Amino acid sequence: MFTFRLERACGAARAGVLDLPHGRLLTPAFMPVGTYGTVRGLHPDEVEQAGAQIILGNTYHLHLRPGEAVIRAMGGLHRFTAWPRPMLTDSGGFQVFSLAGLRTIAEEGVEFTSHIDGSVGTLTPESSMEIQAALGADIAMAFDHVVPGQASWALAEEGMERTLRWLTRCRRRHDELAERREDGRTGGGETESSRLPAFPSSRQTLWPIIQGGSHDDLRTRSLEGTLARGPWTGIAIGGLSVGEPKPVMHRVLESLAGALPVDRPRYLMGVGFPEDLVEGIARGVDLFDCVAATRNGRHGSAWTSGGRVNIRKASHRTDERPLDAACDCATCARFSRAYLRHLFVAGDILGLRLVSLHNVRFLLSVGEQARAAIQAQDFDRWSRGWLRRYHAKEDA
Amino acid sequence: MFTFRLERACGAARAGVLDLPHGRLLTPAFMPVGTYGTVRGLHPDEVEQAGAQIILGNTYHLHLRPGEAVIRAMGGLHRFTAWPRPMLTDSGGFQVFSLAGLRTIAEEGVEFTSHIDGSVGTLTPESSMEIQAALGADIAMAFDHVVPGQASWALAEEGMERTLRWLTRCRRRHDELAERREDGRTGGGETESSRLPAFPSSRQTLWPIIQGGSHDDLRTRSLEGTLARGPWTGIAIGGLSVGEPKPVMHRVLESLAGALPVDRPRYLMGVGFPEDLVEGIARGVDLFDCVAATRNGRHGSAWTSGGRVNIRKASHRTDERPLDAACDCATCARFSRAYLRHLFVAGDILGLRLVSLHNVRFLLSVGEQARAAIQAQDFDRWSRGWLRRYHAKEDA
Repeated sequence: MFTFRLERACGAARAGVLDLPHGRLLTPAFMPVGTYGTVRGLHPDEVEQAGAQIILGNTYHLHLRPGEAVIRAMGGLHRFTAWPRPMLTDSGGFQVFSLAGLRTIAEEGVEFTSHIDGSVGTLTPESSMEIQAALGADIAMAFDHVVPGQASWALAEEGMERTLRWLTRCRRRHDELAERREDGRTGGGETESSRLPAFPSSRQTLWPIIQGGSHDDLRTRSLEGTLARGPWTGIAIGGLSVGEPKPVMHRVLESLAGALPVDRPRYLMGVGFPEDLVEGIARGVDLFDCVAATRNGRHGSAWTSGGRVNIRKASHRTDERPLDAACDCATCARFSRAYLRHLFVAGDILGLRLVSLHNVRFLLSVGEQARAAIQAQDFDRWSRGWLRRYHAKEDA
Repeated sequence: MFTFRLERACGAARAGVLDLPHGRLLTPAFMPVGTYGTVRGLHPDEVEQAGAQIILGNTYHLHLRPGEAVIRAMGGLHRFTAWPRPMLTDSGGFQVFSLAGLRTIAEEGVEFTSHIDGSVGTLTPESSMEIQAALGADIAMAFDHVVPGQASWALAEEGMERTLRWLTRCRRRHDELAERREDGRTGGGETESSRLPAFPSSRQTLWPIIQGGSHDDLRTRSLEGTLARGPWTGIAIGGLSVGEPKPVMHRVLESLAGALPVDRPRYLMGVGFPEDLVEGIARGVDLFDCVAATRNGRHGSAWTSGGRVNIRKASHRTDERPLDAACDCATCARFSRAYLRHLFVAGDILGLRLVSLHNVRFLLSVGEQARAAIQAQDFDRWSRGWLRRYHAKEDA
């Protein structure tokens, strides 16, 4: 369980297989985000049929609504949301980072003001582990201190060092929770003296997060410090796509690629757009996640092999074409641009749903195409061609 | 085509078969409303899998958005919305009636102020026929003058008589349009001298609407006047469920039941709730439509065999049960009340969609159960039992 097998490499690009308690992932792969446990507006069957092998849940959002106690009582996130395949939960670190002005970061953890009701809450490495254990995803993420993409060396160092100290605390609590899970299995269970939560039965692994901003030396120290606290079944790269220029992200990925353990999956957090997936895979990344597919979809913005399409435009009024003639998604198989535009203009939520589904499939398909190209030892040619066509259309 | 075969009667209740250009309907049946051509928020596949044999489109709404010219250019409503089964369009009469204060009714037609942009438009018997011909549903409805449920005899008579005069005009224009359709098939098509719209190829029938408010003598005159302008392939009863008490609606249906032609389908417009279907079928009605299934669904209100359920209530926080254990819909097969509540509280549109789907299936199932009971010559016992259980739960 939690084993990763590297099947083939093509330059820095990798094709692999990751086994998790709820199923197998073929990488590289995009992971759709299910903020509240479901990919926004989409039915789990639709997400599965679109090719998703794993979805993400947001610990911060699920902690606020409905709360981990409810999800634990319902048997964990998989059972609660009726999603049978693998899941990953983030730690809440990035979410509270995003609440700029509404949170205070200290060594103990983060105090934040809820974006929903203004109540004050805290997240610590320990509580993040406890919440994620209650949610019961296959993969839990370490609680990290994210800094902005333009952060100075000093600020980035502070966040990176704190992330390492927090990783030690995460690991300790995660191990305690795992022991308790084992106890629970052999007839233990909750005792009055314990404040630890009860568990869904599924096993869970913990992945650390590399920080260090845009500073290569800090990234290297972060990786070394992380590996020293290992072993790990996978490693995430955080704090990218948070305001730094794209070339900086690419450079950081390149500087890490040679130093990351070859036999562990690499997850680039919060990335990205279709071209970011291709660029990331070219630099050795195996896993990605991003809300843009559904967020853009809700606003009628679709990625297509012919560039970006804004479906609300009047030019689509009687446009018989599908969003993307080259796409194999359920939306493109059935509905015209004219009808999708009509749904958006008339305000029927079926429109949001159909374009979101298309965007999710578009990203999943990029992962599948890249994997096939790597297996065929043709990734360089494929990725150069893909990026050239995509940017030409974007510019047009 | 457009033939109705009465298979079996059980008291006043009827089981029949109606053949339409896009398929066959088994009656009695509920017809889900697709205001903008799609049942709000639902995918046509979901609606079909829930058992819908036909859906409605609203001429008023489709005239405003996207406009019949767009739909005609896209090959008609079926092709535009990717719904392969029968469709019916209302005439806009009820919609403009609902725009109280925003419309003026005169002999020529209705002048109304758009609820969207405040622009002024008109609907006449002729333009309603032209729009509906462009939409291309299997069944078009006559343009009628609806009066409130509490309307006086004099006001109800005025609306009823005008509806008859308008029916004559509807019929004439509908016949002209049908001739033109035939011409189109034999190579005719649009000429510069003609102001009539071009056509989708599918044939269309016109159904008249009985008016007369809550006054039995006016209803009888309306029916006689309508039959005198026939023949018709089906007859609708309008102007009910518009504010009058339920017993009045039942009495009007009873007074009409014996006088309506036995060999034509009867459609009770804008009705209704589950108990209204059972009461209507018991009085000889074959077809129903109502937006309540999806409107209530969007607010988290579900019909169940255990009475009405408000899924937002805190009592469902960790409720493992489906909305209705006796329901065979896709929502009840997979999702708990706890999860549905979470989706509503967190504001994910998947919640609206799942509860809407359940409600649509609930009404479709009432039609199917009633049909089976009629075929088994057991309708009385079934309907009395159904109503007793339903009202007991509603009161509880």
